Amino acid sequence: MKVMILGADGYLGWPLALRLMAKGHEVVGVDNFATRKSVKEVGSDSAIPILDMKDRVKAAKDIHGFNLKFHEGDITHYNFLHKTLKAEKPDTVVHFAEQRSAPYSMINAQHAAYTMSNNIGGTINLIYSIMDIDPKIHIVKMATMGEYGTPNFDIPESAFIDVDINGKHDRITTPKWGGSWYHWTKVHDTNNLLFANKVWKITTPNIFQGPVYGTRTKEITDEKLHSRFDFDEVWGTVVNRFCVESVLDIPLTAYGAGGQIRGYLSLEDSMEALNLLVENPPEKGEHRTANQFVELLSINEIADIVKKAAKKEGIDIEVQHIDNPRVEADRHHYKPEIKVLPSLGFHPKLKMADLGGQIIKDLKPYKTRINGFRDRILPHTNWRKTENAR
Amino acid sequence: MKVMILGADGYLGWPLALRLMAKGHEVVGVDNFATRKSVKEVGSDSAIPILDMKDRVKAAKDIHGFNLKFHEGDITHYNFLHKTLKAEKPDTVVHFAEQRSAPYSMINAQHAAYTMSNNIGGTINLIYSIMDIDPKIHIVKMATMGEYGTPNFDIPESAFIDVDINGKHDRITTPKWGGSWYHWTKVHDTNNLLFANKVWKITTPNIFQGPVYGTRTKEITDEKLHSRFDFDEVWGTVVNRFCVESVLDIPLTAYGAGGQIRGYLSLEDSMEALNLLVENPPEKGEHRTANQFVELLSINEIADIVKKAAKKEGIDIEVQHIDNPRVEADRHHYKPEIKVLPSLGFHPKLKMADLGGQIIKDLKPYKTRINGFRDRILPHTNWRKTENAR
Repeated sequence: MKVMILGADGYLGWPLALRLMAKGHEVVGVDNFATRKSVKEVGSDSAIPILDMKDRVKAAKDIHGFNLKFHEGDITHYNFLHKTLKAEKPDTVVHFAEQRSAPYSMINAQHAAYTMSNNIGGTINLIYSIMDIDPKIHIVKMATMGEYGTPNFDIPESAFIDVDINGKHDRITTPKWGGSWYHWTKVHDTNNLLFANKVWKITTPNIFQGPVYGTRTKEITDEKLHSRFDFDEVWGTVVNRFCVESVLDIPLTAYGAGGQIRGYLSLEDSMEALNLLVENPPEKGEHRTANQFVELLSINEIADIVKKAAKKEGIDIEVQHIDNPRVEADRHHYKPEIKVLPSLGFHPKLKMADLGGQIIKDLKPYKTRINGFRDRILPHTNWRKTENAR
Repeated sequence: MKVMILGADGYLGWPLALRLMAKGHEVVGVDNFATRKSVKEVGSDSAIPILDMKDRVKAAKDIHGFNLKFHEGDITHYNFLHKTLKAEKPDTVVHFAEQRSAPYSMINAQHAAYTMSNNIGGTINLIYSIMDIDPKIHIVKMATMGEYGTPNFDIPESAFIDVDINGKHDRITTPKWGGSWYHWTKVHDTNNLLFANKVWKITTPNIFQGPVYGTRTKEITDEKLHSRFDFDEVWGTVVNRFCVESVLDIPLTAYGAGGQIRGYLSLEDSMEALNLLVENPPEKGEHRTANQFVELLSINEIADIVKKAAKKEGIDIEVQHIDNPRVEADRHHYKPEIKVLPSLGFHPKLKMADLGGQIIKDLKPYKTRINGFRDRILPHTNWRKTENAR
């Protein structure tokens, strides 16, 4: 199968390129390096140093014998995307090329508007390019579990659900509530993809993934092959931040009371799940909703897991509850369905408790490097008080 | 009250500026003339000629003694909007400055992406500018009844509704389904405004208006004060198109079987409703949903009304059913609630049957002008076959 990965330089994009090549697929990567630039913009960097794309491609060849083809460009430029897709004619396009940070989208008006037009515009361009070049190309789109918010109902694994509203029955799009502009761009994308599916029958698995953690996949066997690892308040996710805090021997910073529950999974399990979704497209013309996570955990449970993992590495760490910079529920129902991935043969191999130690071990050699960015860990981006909203 | 109208050169913006000045309010207009340019882009023009803004302002002064202040600029440029709002410090901002054509948004990728970033980006900039300058400024936002689609449930006049989903109770955002990219930008805007209301308590009446028709308001007493009147397949709404077809003595072109029901209102009643919403802001920090229409009518009923009105003007016209270029239901439930406007004292004065003849009379002097654009009436923009989606 020939797969084009939009966002192939990212935390998930790079390891997915390696995984798909390991599975014998032909892979073409596309990226505009926006994440590298935007992480530097907020004064931070990947905890683990990563190579430039040219050297990444060379390392993948030298170490695994993989041939990754790469195009630098911005998919919000329709002509670039159309030309590249037309030249490559992939069977499948994996679409990761979106601004993926909730805090980044909340910095100010410019960052909010950029996140909106970048994420929504790229997806629109992809829809039209595929319809023009070959409507059979299958779009594997990264959505997020965050689109659902934390509803009182059990989160179904379907784009539409049956409801009763004031005594009348109807079938509606599964209700969503975004917790940031970033999350809303994902909701808007999902709605736009459902509309495109209705009008043009484009084929899409839309993947509602929970937060991913970890440094390793089967293919990341050498430091030259590492994926980026963000930990700062803007770009880091909670597990990665906790592991970095452990390495720096500073308290784990839990936002609020720590009751927030999400569905987490390791980088390795994410790759396995994504590979299954790439290799098993839905029926032609089908919009498939796939929820993707392994464990439901609260912030407090994660803090406990990382604290124990750190202890085994000889680091004794405290958990500190700090004011939650976000607007989110602290105690809530959370019961998402997950049937699609198991039906495709997904058997997650890792729990967070197994992996905490490995992440800390991988970070330790970079303690001095990470220490240079320690002032970027505590939240500066506050949902209620953004730079332009005093 | 000091009111800034974003989109003051438009079909609704211009007559609203006149109405608010007639009511004694201080009005500042803002526009980038995008509609004038985009109508020309598709080879059409307003059926009734309209003056340039400079001459409009002069005519309003000469005829009514009104003083309209005007700024040319694009609200998707944050610095322009912020600077203008800061200089003017209005009590209220009426936000009409969006790309308002469903067919225009469906032309191709570029038009779809432009509609998304223009509409969503302008609203984001307005939210942030207001929060920075004065969060008490009240945003009167033009949404559309089209955001609801044609659901089986009765359309409530509220942003949130109670539902039962698989035995669990929850309160969700009122379900939406857009019929074009344009409609989806309005849905995305509504969601973005609800999020901004949750985080920052901005004050907004969000107006779900049905299609507006007509040429006259109390203040449009002279041909120099006419508002634009679009009738082509991209920019015209159904009633205006039917009236132009009557004047040209060509069959009324009903899309599909003609069972599509929407809530219509005249330009005069729209002005009265908007004036009430401007003069009666919701509580500080409230997001108020107002549905705005007068009559529920099907395409076939409208065709009958216009046919009868034309007959009175001595024009004998046929109704022709043509393939529906849109993707929409032809037979459907449609029962929207309307309580907010009546509670503010809204008493609609006109029914479509009263007004058809007036519109035809106003158009007749421009028959030769309109005839020059007659090839722009039949649909070229097909939802299923857009320029870039073969």
